[in-house]
Amino acid sequence: MTSTSRYSIGVDYGTASVRAVVVDVDSGAEIAASSWGYAHGRDGVVVDSNEPDLARQHPADYAEGFRRVVGEAVSMARSVRGFSSDRVVGIGIDTTGSTPLPVDAAGIALATLPQFAHEPAAMAWLWKDHSSHAEAAEITDRIRRTDRPYLDTCGGTYSSEWYWSKILRCTRTRPEVAAAAYTWVELCDYVPALVTGTAHPQRLVRSICAAGHKAMYHPRWGGLPSAAFLDELAEGLGRLRDRYAGPVVAADRPVGGLLATWAAEVGLPAGIPVAAGAFDAHMGAVGAGVAPGTLVKIMGTSTCDCMVAPMPRAGEREIDIPGVCGIVPESILPGMLGIEAGQSAVGDIFDWYANRMAGDVGPSAAERHARLTEAAAALAPGESGLLALDWHNGNRTILVNPRLSGAVIGQSLHTTHGEMYRALIEATAFGALRIIERIEECGVPVRDVVACGGLAERNPLIMQIYADVCGRPIAVSRSPQTCALGAAIFGAVVGKAHPDVAAAQRAMAGVREERHHPHPDRHATYRTLYSLYRQLHDAFGTRENIGSLHGVMKELLRLRDAARASRKGTVR
Amino acid sequence: MTSTSRYSIGVDYGTASVRAVVVDVDSGAEIAASSWGYAHGRDGVVVDSNEPDLARQHPADYAEGFRRVVGEAVSMARSVRGFSSDRVVGIGIDTTGSTPLPVDAAGIALATLPQFAHEPAAMAWLWKDHSSHAEAAEITDRIRRTDRPYLDTCGGTYSSEWYWSKILRCTRTRPEVAAAAYTWVELCDYVPALVTGTAHPQRLVRSICAAGHKAMYHPRWGGLPSAAFLDELAEGLGRLRDRYAGPVVAADRPVGGLLATWAAEVGLPAGIPVAAGAFDAHMGAVGAGVAPGTLVKIMGTSTCDCMVAPMPRAGEREIDIPGVCGIVPESILPGMLGIEAGQSAVGDIFDWYANRMAGDVGPSAAERHARLTEAAAALAPGESGLLALDWHNGNRTILVNPRLSGAVIGQSLHTTHGEMYRALIEATAFGALRIIERIEECGVPVRDVVACGGLAERNPLIMQIYADVCGRPIAVSRSPQTCALGAAIFGAVVGKAHPDVAAAQRAMAGVREERHHPHPDRHATYRTLYSLYRQLHDAFGTRENIGSLHGVMKELLRLRDAARASRKGTVR
Repeated sequence: MTSTSRYSIGVDYGTASVRAVVVDVDSGAEIAASSWGYAHGRDGVVVDSNEPDLARQHPADYAEGFRRVVGEAVSMARSVRGFSSDRVVGIGIDTTGSTPLPVDAAGIALATLPQFAHEPAAMAWLWKDHSSHAEAAEITDRIRRTDRPYLDTCGGTYSSEWYWSKILRCTRTRPEVAAAAYTWVELCDYVPALVTGTAHPQRLVRSICAAGHKAMYHPRWGGLPSAAFLDELAEGLGRLRDRYAGPVVAADRPVGGLLATWAAEVGLPAGIPVAAGAFDAHMGAVGAGVAPGTLVKIMGTSTCDCMVAPMPRAGEREIDIPGVCGIVPESILPGMLGIEAGQSAVGDIFDWYANRMAGDVGPSAAERHARLTEAAAALAPGESGLLALDWHNGNRTILVNPRLSGAVIGQSLHTTHGEMYRALIEATAFGALRIIERIEECGVPVRDVVACGGLAERNPLIMQIYADVCGRPIAVSRSPQTCALGAAIFGAVVGKAHPDVAAAQRAMAGVREERHHPHPDRHATYRTLYSLYRQLHDAFGTRENIGSLHGVMKELLRLRDAARASRKGTVR
Repeated sequence: MTSTSRYSIGVDYGTASVRAVVVDVDSGAEIAASSWGYAHGRDGVVVDSNEPDLARQHPADYAEGFRRVVGEAVSMARSVRGFSSDRVVGIGIDTTGSTPLPVDAAGIALATLPQFAHEPAAMAWLWKDHSSHAEAAEITDRIRRTDRPYLDTCGGTYSSEWYWSKILRCTRTRPEVAAAAYTWVELCDYVPALVTGTAHPQRLVRSICAAGHKAMYHPRWGGLPSAAFLDELAEGLGRLRDRYAGPVVAADRPVGGLLATWAAEVGLPAGIPVAAGAFDAHMGAVGAGVAPGTLVKIMGTSTCDCMVAPMPRAGEREIDIPGVCGIVPESILPGMLGIEAGQSAVGDIFDWYANRMAGDVGPSAAERHARLTEAAAALAPGESGLLALDWHNGNRTILVNPRLSGAVIGQSLHTTHGEMYRALIEATAFGALRIIERIEECGVPVRDVVACGGLAERNPLIMQIYADVCGRPIAVSRSPQTCALGAAIFGAVVGKAHPDVAAAQRAMAGVREERHHPHPDRHATYRTLYSLYRQLHDAFGTRENIGSLHGVMKELLRLRDAARASRKGTVR
């Protein structure tokens, strides 16, 4: 740190909490960090026990979160030699998504108005809210029946997690809220607009990442789907197209300067440029060093997989990867196609198991995870006799279907928590491999895998199982806050500390030295288990005739017995 | 009780413990009862963590158990007015099975000899020992390939739970034990022989129930399979046929009188007639009032289903029920065909869940079961969104395949222990219905169902779910010790207190007044769930092409949502 050091700030809105980091733009060193758990709901999520698919957040938490975490991070940074608030060049913001919230004609979030104070439909519809699964199916069906192109760039199936499904659901079930909504704003657009005073719908800057991946926005058909199409979904919905008036940009573009009132609250000068927002996973991919050939896995409650590929040149066929969440120009890196895929629940599955199923394993969630991990680590591939499907929250890629659920095959009267936990880890790894295979089948090679996020940070067993299952070395991002670091990279770019995102990545991003390498024997066993996973995956997830599953349990028992015999050192 | 009262004693050897009851032969009143948990192994079962299919018992526990429970029951009975030990007319004995143990040429159990004291292969191979699954498949395969008739009366597939599989396994893996075995004796033959001094192989009386259902003994082919066939399985195995020298009889026949040494130890006069043994389930069926049209379910760690049907008359086609454990003349009631089917694990599954999976639900097994039952009872059919397969210990009927395992489909991130527990109960009920349907498909009507055993006694929720799933009223046997009561009925018959078993049943057996009646709405939902169960059952359990399971998870989610909506009182 020298007196010429410059800094950017990255703010990362997750599912349960928000965090901010202050980063040295030359070294990538994170000199201060702060986080805050949302005040509303359970672990930050407003739920309804009668409607298990519902998951909302209160927008008041977003404003309060910015105030708290940026203010505290800046305050902590002041104790670092060389830092002063006038050396902060820019701010980047990432959030979960698709997490749209309804706003009025002035851009005020409806849930912050007295008449909607306790109305969940007026809150933000969190990414993992699946209550609109029927609407998603309806949208997909209508697009297919009318031969419209809107799903060509987002995997062929519209998801219940996405923008229009949620809006349509609200229109159907809470018409008074839908009528009061002038427009719906993605969370990643809402926060930058809020802190720069650009929330008015006529001025609102929208993120190409959110628009392209979740709202079927694409230059090929002139932006959003046509008003006629939206009106077919629900009378009057077409009005929302005109109200999507502002520019749609990549995150290397500023949306404005930090308002004086906000600046004063967090201890920064007014006017610091704030980058256009993007999804946490996309900025996380940038923070982990995404580049052609490198798949970045952002592993948390769910997992998001991000890739980039060169833009097709004139006359080249566009890349099509059935079942991925989207292929959108510039959604991750400027000048490149952004490819997003993902798994609807990963850490959420482990948390469910540790908290709901294995409460006897330890007194705290952290201890339960530690003990379950220890028990799972003592097992060889196949030794549990179990095989699971990782669809506890539906399947985002490649089946794009929320109407799926988890499964575990192979329990005996001796099955233990450690075996179950390992089987669930393996299931998510098989799901990850299915995605990699699909991307490669479509002509985009996956040479490296970089993981980041809480699971990658904390659990080497999970990373080793992923390496053994996928047959590829897995690196872990150097930063423990990769999404926030990615946001800070965009903050550095809009603050002109670097000429472009690639240069900022070279300076600020990186991976840990040690990598997880696949072990040949374990990989061989996992090839067999993966073929069984594929049978279950296709049987429950597709309409393909998979014949009989007669061999599945027998093969699991054979692998189990072989693993145990080899442990015993005897051949039976 | 008058001074002319007469009594019989029933002794019931279960998986974890042995019990004795003293019963008034005129009223069926159980005036004294005693039980004892076996000293060896865990909960009475010697296991091997490296070989999860292994389950053995030490024969010393059988002798010690007789001494303890009969002695204590007789001692307790002395305090009942009208009882005296010279008013005990007979003793009946039932045991688990197929539970064969190797004995030497004098009929001494090998495990009680010093050289085999710590050798699990020399102990009794408990019914639920599945380590010989490969040998069972080999026996089935050889019989089929050589067109022999031996499987015609036991469902078409030989089981790893049965006599010859276990003997063949021992021959292959512990040849020194197999060589030391003069013959192998079923537990239900071993105990009567022991206490009457008839254990010498030349005198040993064998039970038609064990021989017919487990050892492929049938008059049609002259008793056991041919020595040539046994020698094909393993060189020299044919010698066992000649060593099966004694009579093979139904349990209304005495094997001898109680030896003076034993009589003195338990406080009874010497010479009291002891009936030929039979399996616990078969005697339990008698104790529950089995008769044509009445299916008796003996529900404990596993479940055994017993029926009787009239013997085919000359020229009539014999009954054939593919997949049932056996159709054996006189194995349950003299003069009737005995039909046995069953599920390899029922209570064992609930115990596994309560003890291994849901340890956090309560401090003791009993409290955990109570709380899980309470949580499960609060749910409507379909509300859990779960569907399970009850094959944690393989499938005995109708697939006859130990190389199957459990499965649960439909977990979400909200799935609870109560939901899982209910799904496991439902799975066993679906398995029970599959058996009833198969029996009826083959021309044997099932008009009534009577349940007995620990689960039937203690858990009305389980009984109600069975009634709702099966669409039939379910009665519960009046006696809390139905198997022991059945044994006492045979004791009364050999003691000439009644002219035959039917007369003894009329006097001594019966069901509780209140029955569990199926509820039409719940039954309707279970019809749908059962059709999904059938899809999974056939997909994993048979080679049939079942096409796709695409609809299974979707239908489970639909049923779940419907159940929750109806609970909310709203239509969504």
